[in-house]
Amino acid sequence: MTKVTLRKKIAPRIANGHPWVYGNEVEKIEGDVTGGDIVDVFYGDGKFAGKGYINPKSQILVRLLTRKQEEINAQFFHNRIARAWEYRKKIGYTENCRLVFGEADQLPALVIDKFNDYFVIQTLSLGIDTWKDAIVRAIGSIFSPKGIYERNDVPVRELEGLPQQKGFLSAPFDTNVLINENGLKFVVDIENGQKTGYFLDQQDNRRAIRHIVKNAEVLGVFTYTGTFEIHAAHYGAKSVLGLDISENAVAQANRNAALNGLQDIVHFEAVNAFDVLKQWGKDGRQYDVVMLDPPAFTKSRENIQKALTGYKEINLRGMKLIRNGGFLVTSSCTNLVSPEQFLQTIELAAKDARKRIRQVTFQAQASDHPIIWGMENTNYLKFLIVEVEDR
Amino acid sequence: MTKVTLRKKIAPRIANGHPWVYGNEVEKIEGDVTGGDIVDVFYGDGKFAGKGYINPKSQILVRLLTRKQEEINAQFFHNRIARAWEYRKKIGYTENCRLVFGEADQLPALVIDKFNDYFVIQTLSLGIDTWKDAIVRAIGSIFSPKGIYERNDVPVRELEGLPQQKGFLSAPFDTNVLINENGLKFVVDIENGQKTGYFLDQQDNRRAIRHIVKNAEVLGVFTYTGTFEIHAAHYGAKSVLGLDISENAVAQANRNAALNGLQDIVHFEAVNAFDVLKQWGKDGRQYDVVMLDPPAFTKSRENIQKALTGYKEINLRGMKLIRNGGFLVTSSCTNLVSPEQFLQTIELAAKDARKRIRQVTFQAQASDHPIIWGMENTNYLKFLIVEVEDR
Repeated sequence: MTKVTLRKKIAPRIANGHPWVYGNEVEKIEGDVTGGDIVDVFYGDGKFAGKGYINPKSQILVRLLTRKQEEINAQFFHNRIARAWEYRKKIGYTENCRLVFGEADQLPALVIDKFNDYFVIQTLSLGIDTWKDAIVRAIGSIFSPKGIYERNDVPVRELEGLPQQKGFLSAPFDTNVLINENGLKFVVDIENGQKTGYFLDQQDNRRAIRHIVKNAEVLGVFTYTGTFEIHAAHYGAKSVLGLDISENAVAQANRNAALNGLQDIVHFEAVNAFDVLKQWGKDGRQYDVVMLDPPAFTKSRENIQKALTGYKEINLRGMKLIRNGGFLVTSSCTNLVSPEQFLQTIELAAKDARKRIRQVTFQAQASDHPIIWGMENTNYLKFLIVEVEDR
Repeated sequence: MTKVTLRKKIAPRIANGHPWVYGNEVEKIEGDVTGGDIVDVFYGDGKFAGKGYINPKSQILVRLLTRKQEEINAQFFHNRIARAWEYRKKIGYTENCRLVFGEADQLPALVIDKFNDYFVIQTLSLGIDTWKDAIVRAIGSIFSPKGIYERNDVPVRELEGLPQQKGFLSAPFDTNVLINENGLKFVVDIENGQKTGYFLDQQDNRRAIRHIVKNAEVLGVFTYTGTFEIHAAHYGAKSVLGLDISENAVAQANRNAALNGLQDIVHFEAVNAFDVLKQWGKDGRQYDVVMLDPPAFTKSRENIQKALTGYKEINLRGMKLIRNGGFLVTSSCTNLVSPEQFLQTIELAAKDARKRIRQVTFQAQASDHPIIWGMENTNYLKFLIVEVEDR
């Protein structure tokens, strides 16, 4: 087997559990380097560090799978996925969950979302892509899947020299999957929806709005298929208006509202939120609760400042629409923006909007996306509720 | 009215909302200085900053009550308490709650805990103590209280030149109050219990254990009157053992267990947790879930390092008792230990215990104790659940 030996100075990071080895952290490689192969990794002093998959085309040369001298084979992936499932069951995520959250489940670059009996897979590095068949077989033997689908139509695959693709990994099935969440029904379009079709990471956060929306006039912005807004209606809002720029998302959101018999309370409109919020602020429109759940404003470090400006702007505009003593529900899913940076941004927005705010709730993504300390990309979702008062 | 003028450099802190003026931040005082009186505060440039109560005996010379030119009278306190109650109702805390959380409700140094129809008050500065009668009358007119009790037997009052005292502020009543929390019953001893008798700040966090304790063998440490442990039994634990050094706490915890018909599942023992955990680690005892909820290890900045050492030690010992793949539920209520310091301490403990951990949940106190950014003492409770694996 090919041997990769690390430079001395990076030993602590790897020893502390970080699974990524960058090309410039390697002292020497002995043996063939074939992309996707399993290699042995050693510290500078010759001590065994672990095994992982190598890809010379990627900035991340090796992604470690294990720290033990064990064989990496189909059974290894089966066991890891079974272990991930045990964890979800223990913490109470059984019907719908992120079954595998990559590095946080010691399966680097693998994402599996479970929507009751349907599974959506992303294999985001060459190494894990090599094991796709084994992963599909493991799902087949651990569960009784009604369908498995591949959503590998993501640009990050190209950094690994992989093509973008999507399609069935099982017999074809209706890719509009009906799920239950918090007692509500939603259709998940696993073929054409964003990411794997649905944002499971907000499933607990959607419950967090249940008290503040009671009898409230609610505005939801960047609604996608309307899950937050439909929850608000379900939890007793007087009226809910949801905004999204996509006509298709709005159509799906309206369908989801009807599916839950909430079409008289919640409505959706396809508009550009930035423009509309600005205008409504000038018009003096007011809501009891404003919810903002924007898409990631940046995927590259160079654009963090621009993203922060965007977050500040949208939150400022949102706050201006909130009645005295109302609530702002605001999220950021950009992993490049730290929780601290996010809070600072909201604080700046409040200052500019001349509002005084109090923190009601601040939390991360649902626990089926566990956080590994020291791996920033596992702590990516910021979800905040603040009370907003006029100064 | 007496006029207090601030030095120029502290203007931003006060302007940004911080309500404390320290003696050395004052440029000049015009007029009489009578402890407990309301004074006008001005920025260095003569602009009005707000009104608050002064106490020359305290390090915090003035605690600001308002930024507006409004009269401070009994009605003012009535309105603030009514506002605090509106907030709790909106966020869903009606039966039991921290009704007033001092600075976070713009009522500096005032604490009011509501246990259904009973109210426990702490007036922790001379200024607020002066208004005690008005506060009692406000509670009487906003609610239909069955009883009001004063728990001013706290050393911090002496820094304000106030005596420690406790007793009835209404007609006497049975000070063992029965409350419901998450469908369970607990007796709160508001006369002799810790603080106001009960730790309302953990009420949401107690629900956070509901999945992980299912069918588990659970050990609870620093149990006080057993609320976490009784919740664990209620949520389906196979067995629960609770430890506390106080015989009296253990007796109350056993009574609470019996009150909920859970006496066959949960048991309590009066022991020194530090000693016992060390010994049990040597003996190889194992649990599926270990819960640690220690009292504040320090109240002074000089002892932070010692407190951190204490937290590390108790968490290290706790982790050693956890079966592979089990969970640690760990808290810290010391406001002098920041959330970041707490996480670092747990990380060090895990390293020493040779465990790998994953974050399941990390949250603060319940939302009836709102957090004001920039006021560290309002962000005091750290509640963490991690999964613990052998390395």
